[in-house]
Parts: sequence; structure tokens; C-alpha cells
Amino acid sequence: MTDRTVRYQLNESEIPTNWYNLVADLPEPPAPPLHPGTHEPIGPEMLAPLFPMALIEQEVSAERWIEIPEAVRDVYRQWRVTPLHRARRLERHLDTPAKIYYKYEGVSPAGSHKPNTAVAQAYYNKVEGTRRLVTETGAGQWGSSLAFSGALFGLEVDVYMVRVSFEQKPYRKALMEAYGARCVASPSEETEAGRAILAKDPDSRGSLGIAISEAVEMAMQRDDTRYALGSVLNHVLLHQTVIGLEAQKQLEMAGDYPDIVLGCTGGGSNFAGIAFPFLGDQLRGGRRVEIRACEPAACPSLTRGRFAYDFGDTAGMTPLVKMHTLGAHFMPPGFHAGGLRYHGMAPLVSHIRELGLIDAYAFNQLDCFEAGVTFGRTEGILPAPEATHVVKGAIDAALECKQSGEAKTILFNLCGHGHFDMQAYTDYFAGKLTDQIYDEQDLQKSLAALPQVG
Amino acid sequence: MTDRTVRYQLNESEIPTNWYNLVADLPEPPAPPLHPGTHEPIGPEMLAPLFPMALIEQEVSAERWIEIPEAVRDVYRQWRVTPLHRARRLERHLDTPAKIYYKYEGVSPAGSHKPNTAVAQAYYNKVEGTRRLVTETGAGQWGSSLAFSGALFGLEVDVYMVRVSFEQKPYRKALMEAYGARCVASPSEETEAGRAILAKDPDSRGSLGIAISEAVEMAMQRDDTRYALGSVLNHVLLHQTVIGLEAQKQLEMAGDYPDIVLGCTGGGSNFAGIAFPFLGDQLRGGRRVEIRACEPAACPSLTRGRFAYDFGDTAGMTPLVKMHTLGAHFMPPGFHAGGLRYHGMAPLVSHIRELGLIDAYAFNQLDCFEAGVTFGRTEGILPAPEATHVVKGAIDAALECKQSGEAKTILFNLCGHGHFDMQAYTDYFAGKLTDQIYDEQDLQKSLAALPQVG
Repeated sequence: MTDRTVRYQLNESEIPTNWYNLVADLPEPPAPPLHPGTHEPIGPEMLAPLFPMALIEQEVSAERWIEIPEAVRDVYRQWRVTPLHRARRLERHLDTPAKIYYKYEGVSPAGSHKPNTAVAQAYYNKVEGTRRLVTETGAGQWGSSLAFSGALFGLEVDVYMVRVSFEQKPYRKALMEAYGARCVASPSEETEAGRAILAKDPDSRGSLGIAISEAVEMAMQRDDTRYALGSVLNHVLLHQTVIGLEAQKQLEMAGDYPDIVLGCTGGGSNFAGIAFPFLGDQLRGGRRVEIRACEPAACPSLTRGRFAYDFGDTAGMTPLVKMHTLGAHFMPPGFHAGGLRYHGMAPLVSHIRELGLIDAYAFNQLDCFEAGVTFGRTEGILPAPEATHVVKGAIDAALECKQSGEAKTILFNLCGHGHFDMQAYTDYFAGKLTDQIYDEQDLQKSLAALPQVG
Repeated sequence: MTDRTVRYQLNESEIPTNWYNLVADLPEPPAPPLHPGTHEPIGPEMLAPLFPMALIEQEVSAERWIEIPEAVRDVYRQWRVTPLHRARRLERHLDTPAKIYYKYEGVSPAGSHKPNTAVAQAYYNKVEGTRRLVTETGAGQWGSSLAFSGALFGLEVDVYMVRVSFEQKPYRKALMEAYGARCVASPSEETEAGRAILAKDPDSRGSLGIAISEAVEMAMQRDDTRYALGSVLNHVLLHQTVIGLEAQKQLEMAGDYPDIVLGCTGGGSNFAGIAFPFLGDQLRGGRRVEIRACEPAACPSLTRGRFAYDFGDTAGMTPLVKMHTLGAHFMPPGFHAGGLRYHGMAPLVSHIRELGLIDAYAFNQLDCFEAGVTFGRTEGILPAPEATHVVKGAIDAALECKQSGEAKTILFNLCGHGHFDMQAYTDYFAGKLTDQIYDEQDLQKSLAALPQVG
């Protein structure tokens, strides 16, 4: 065991039977979502046009464990339990006394962690009679995961894809279409929200906030149609906890427990997936774990955003949620980690940051790609641009250990492979990438325009 | 168990400890390779400038079991044992009484079965002091796998990539570069072989035969440099038998045994990997298995080639090997399964076809893509264009069962995912693909030019 590759494998019978709900163990609950007009806490009925009742119940649940339906576990079995690796070659390369483990979610059919919730959402919608799902996507990981899940459960899927990614990443669109979904560049002429943006700026490159507005608008129009979101919401984070629950069992096999747990954060779901089960154990009296969120310096909601009520979308169609936000009109620069280009952060992740339970770090694009290439050349897996942020964070943590001489145990979630993102690596090797910087004035203007609540 | 997704999982300790060598169980040995000048069987010394001695020994070995070095198994552990799935959703879609199993090799870091041999070849070269490996690649699966393996073992890797694929698939080149390899379009100006082709045809789109000539030429020039081949040779097929050996154990877990085993064939290695262990059991008195090779109708070496001595490359630098060949100067049309565009077939696969131990089927491009999309929408994995051929073959076999009412057990090797090949799917959905047909006159001319031996 001293110097070999290790993959801690579990039998498929050890796929978790329940998702873990962090809310049950928090010292205080997160602030409730508010009605945008009345600023009163909203009830489930306001969400009913958008989501099936089972997901709305999960969204507001305080139960610690929520059973995973057998039909969902049945699909999970195709690629779960995902591997947990000890990154020995990376450790040697860094010459660190730290032990580095990574959970690898890139083995899913869509190449990322996103199917963990896409499958669950498609299932609950199918059971409650939904015929069509509408969603948005940034880099396309989420859109292709929902397209995959829709194909399995016989649901139509329409995806509004941020225009800049739609143009940069045509192959993600092709994957969605291969799964039978329809993929439209956003802003589009199909919705009022899209047309309003295009009227002001015909060349708009789009944003997740705009695409959410379009998808929500379309979902409201038809009774047989519901909306699906790939991150941010409580029930989405809940579904991702299979990642951390599996990692706990796998580390137990390895006889280890993490000192530091890391995830990259865009909307917060893969981070929550790896971190919440460990945080939950800590809150119930277990070992303290240092938890680090790794975000892009070009869209730094956790490190530079304001903790305030804001809209989840640009057109102001969603409820107001309390989160770290750069403002719903903030336009992040066009860096390659499209999945991290969101103005806000999951309310639950924001809440635990305010409680001092996690830390956040922001990294520049070039440092992240350098870390990604180092990881590819040592461990053999080329990370998605989003995932390079957590690789950078983990390498930094390992180098801190080298400095201090501490043999800490580091665990991070490698949320997806970069096989669809080779243009980004091509540009990186050609020296075409820069550290994209957001406009500080733009950020201040965006923050000043936050809705006034309470 | 009646209607659920099944993944038969083995513990990493169950990775095979030996490769299986079919030659040990054959009723007669394959014809030996010949010296191109004397037409006499060649000795190991002729191969020594190209390959390390350990691989030359494997090439000519008649031992049934050849031990897998611990350092190779150590790397295998990262993604092996690969999953074996029961394709229940595809079965339901086809409404067939057949049981369909597939072994999935797309979970490797390079996305295909190719690392099974690339890792072994890099290891043996490293042990024997090689500093640089040179190779060719068609679609890029092999080149990126060798680049990955070179990165792990600290070897320089140079890859000559068939020009048509180099231009069609820039992202495979980017992956090779991410692993630290150098990738050059072939024919190139770097070699005599390449310059000779370009002098005749400056617009040559290249072929595997030409790229092999270039790589062999470069390998001969430097003492610290060896050549690596991704298919065709006995030792390459040997390394791939981990696929079938694992599948045997996994099917045993499932309480099943295949009636029909299928693989797609370009050079023959992934086909050999899944089929040889089952064929070996049959030859040692076990159950008879129907084995089907699935090849492209546009490059049909097994179904339309001649069984004759031919060069492995275009410039005539390799030994003469007896195989099903379309002639070393045959130029296949530019269909998308670049990994299947080779004029010859592995001598060992050709030999067992002559012995009547396997069958071969040729499929058209459009039928294959249709099968690939059906598979993607039911099983969730979009196959590489190469792999769509075996999917087509497996679906046909399942539909035969539907007609006959027989509940046969079908096993096929899904050798890679299509995430790097989305342009092909994009073209397919846009109606831009046709059934590429080779030129019959061109084939006859190529066959007439075969070397006269014996």
C-alpha cells in the first residue's frame, strides 16, 4: 500500500439510500425566500407552477434524511458509486506530506456530477405527470445532464443556453440534441424576457440570469411543463450529497478522515455535495473539518458579493432569496469556466458562510489552468475548467502542508472531465487566455441596484 | 432484479493478474512475419530497433498466461475493473427476448480501451531505457492514450496524426498536448516517407499506413527512441484481453454466459480484447460462442480484403504480415470512424477468421450513427463513431432474437465514448453524412499491387 494507486471501491449495494439534508443540523435555519411583491415569505403554492410537489417538499424540508426513490438509485447504479482516488502521483509531484484524495464525478454519462440531481428531478416530474421540462444552462453540463435524464424518463427537454457558451461550445449542444433535447441560444426571440434583452442589446452574449428568466417564463406558460434548475436550490444541493456520503464510506475503507474538504463553487451544488455530509457530522459532534469553497476571481460571489436578498434571475421572475450576490445584473467577463459564471450563490452555502462554517477562496483563470494541466499530467484526468478551480485550491492546501510540514488529509471533488472543453485548453496552450477581470464600477452599480428588502 | 439497471462490479483486487495469449490454444499457429527483402521469417533482432525486448518476447510467445507487471496493474487500478452493464433499457426499447450486456471501456482517462496497452508499452519501454516513443494515430484515441501513458512514466511522446483527422478533430491534438506530447499532421515534412507522399500529392489527407511509415522512420533514427503501435500486433491484442477476462468474471456474477460476443474492428485490438478469452475457453473444451467482428463497409478488410502477406504501412518499412488486407495503398473514404480506417487487420484476428472461428459483418455509416443515437437515448452513453459499429451489430443480433423468439445472451465491448466526436454527431443530425463508399476500381488496383510472396 505504500506507493500505489488506490481506488476505494464500493459495491453498488452501498449507494446511499438517503440524501442528507444539512438544514436538520444547522444551529439556525436559513432565511426564507420572499415574494418579490409583498416581501413576505412565500408558501409552496407559489412554487407549484414551477416544480412538482415532491421537490417543493424537499426544498423546505427539515428532515435529516430523505429517501432516494428506488427508480433513481436504479439509474445511479449505472455509474455510482463513483471512484475515490488517492492522488499519489500528484502528491509525489508536489513533494507534500499531505494525503490528497479526490472523488471523481466525471464517470457519469454526461461527464459531471449534474446527473445526480437531473435524474431525481426528471423522476419526480414524471411521477407527477409533467410532460416537458425547461431549463437554462451555462457551459452545457447541466443542460446535457437534464437531456440525458429526460431521455431516460420520456420527458421533452428544452434548454436555454447562454449565448456565449452556445457559440463557444457547439458540441455540448450536439450532445443535448443526441439525447433528444432542444437547445436554444439565450437571449432568444422565444420569450418576452429574451426579446426585452435583445431590444436593448442585439449582441447580448447572455448570462445564466437571463437564461433562467427565459426558462421560467416558458415553464409558466403550459400546464404540462415544469422548470428545472441545476444548482442553487436546497433540493438540488440535497441530491448532490450522495457524493459526500459515498466519500465518507470510502475514506472509512481507507482508514482516513479529511482535515480539509474542497469544492469549486458556481451555484454551489457540487461543493455542497462533497462538503455537507462532513459538515453535518461536525455539527452533530464529530470531528471539525476545514471546508474551502473555490470560486473564480472573475465572478467572486462568496468573496466579493453582498449577503442580501436578490433575484435568482435577471428579469426578476423568481422569488427573492438571501444569498451572496454580485447583483442580478452583474455581467461576468467571458472566462472559460462557464459553469461558474453565476451572479449568486446557493442560499444554503451563503448561510453557512455567514455562520463561519466554511471559508472561500478566489482564483484566477491562468493559475487554474496551470493546476489543471499539472493534474492531467500526474493523475491522467484533464479537469473541466470549472473543476480546475478546486484542483488549484487543493494544490495550494497541499503546498501549505509542505511549508508547515503537516501531513494533513485533503479531500476534493473533481466534478467533471474536460473532454468537452478542449477549446479552452487549446487557447490556454496558445497563450490566448488572460486573467479575466470584472469591472469594479460595474459590480458597484450592480450591488447598488439590489432590491431593498425589510 | 427483474427490471433494474445492473452494473456488475468487481473489487480492484480482482483485476486480472495475467493477460491471456490466444496463440497457446489455437489448433495451428498463425503464419510468421517475413523479412520484406528475403521473404524469410524474421527473428527478434529485426524488431529490436523498434520495440523493447519484453514486448518482442510477448509478440512471439506461445505461453497461455503472461503476467501483468505490478506497475501496470497499479495504473489500471485507476479505472479498472471497468463496468459491465446489462442494457435493460435498450432491451425494452427493442422489445427483444435477448439479454444484452456491454463492457464499458470509456471510463478510462483517455475515454477508450487504448490505455490498456499504452500503459503496458510505456512501462516496458521505461524499464528498458527508452526516452522517447513515436507513434501514429487515426482519430486520436491511440495517440492521446500513449500521451497519457508517457506522462505517467516520464517518456517523451511524438504522435503522427492522419491529416484528415488532425484537421477534423483538433481537440484530440489538444488532449495530447495537455499530456505533454507533440502531435504532427501526417504526411509531414519531417520524414522521408512523408516528404515522398507530399511530393506526389501536396494535398494528401493521409492514412494510417502513411503515418505508421513516418513513425517507424523516426523511431529508427535514434537509439533512445522506440516505436509504439496501438493495434494489429500480437502483444497489443494480448494487453487488451483484460477486457474479456474481467467480463468473464462479471458475467459469472450475473450467472450468465454469452451466446454471441461482438467487437468493432479497425486493427482488431478491442475486438480481440473482449473475444479472445471466450474463444480460448471454447478451444479448451468450453461452451461454443458465436463471435462477430463489426467493421465499416467503407473499409471492409475482413469481409472484402484478401488474406495475404502485406506491409503494415504504406512506405513498405514494416515486415510482411499475413492478414486480411485491402492493400497498403488503399485509400478509404473519409468516414467518421477514423479508428477503423486501416487497410489491414491484426494477423491473429485474420488467422482465426480463416480457421472459421469468427464471423465478420460490415455496416454502413448512417446505420451505425442511428444505432449510436438509439443507444445514447436508451442507455445514456453516446458511443464513439468506431463503437457505433458494434452497437449496430449488437442491435441486429438482438432483433434476430426478436424474430426467432430466442432469449440469447449478447455481450459486446463499448470501446469508447463519443465526447471527442461531437462534430460527427453534429454532421449526422444536420443530414450532412452519407454512406461513404470506397472505389471498387481503387480496391482492385490496390489488391493487384500486393507483394508477391512464396
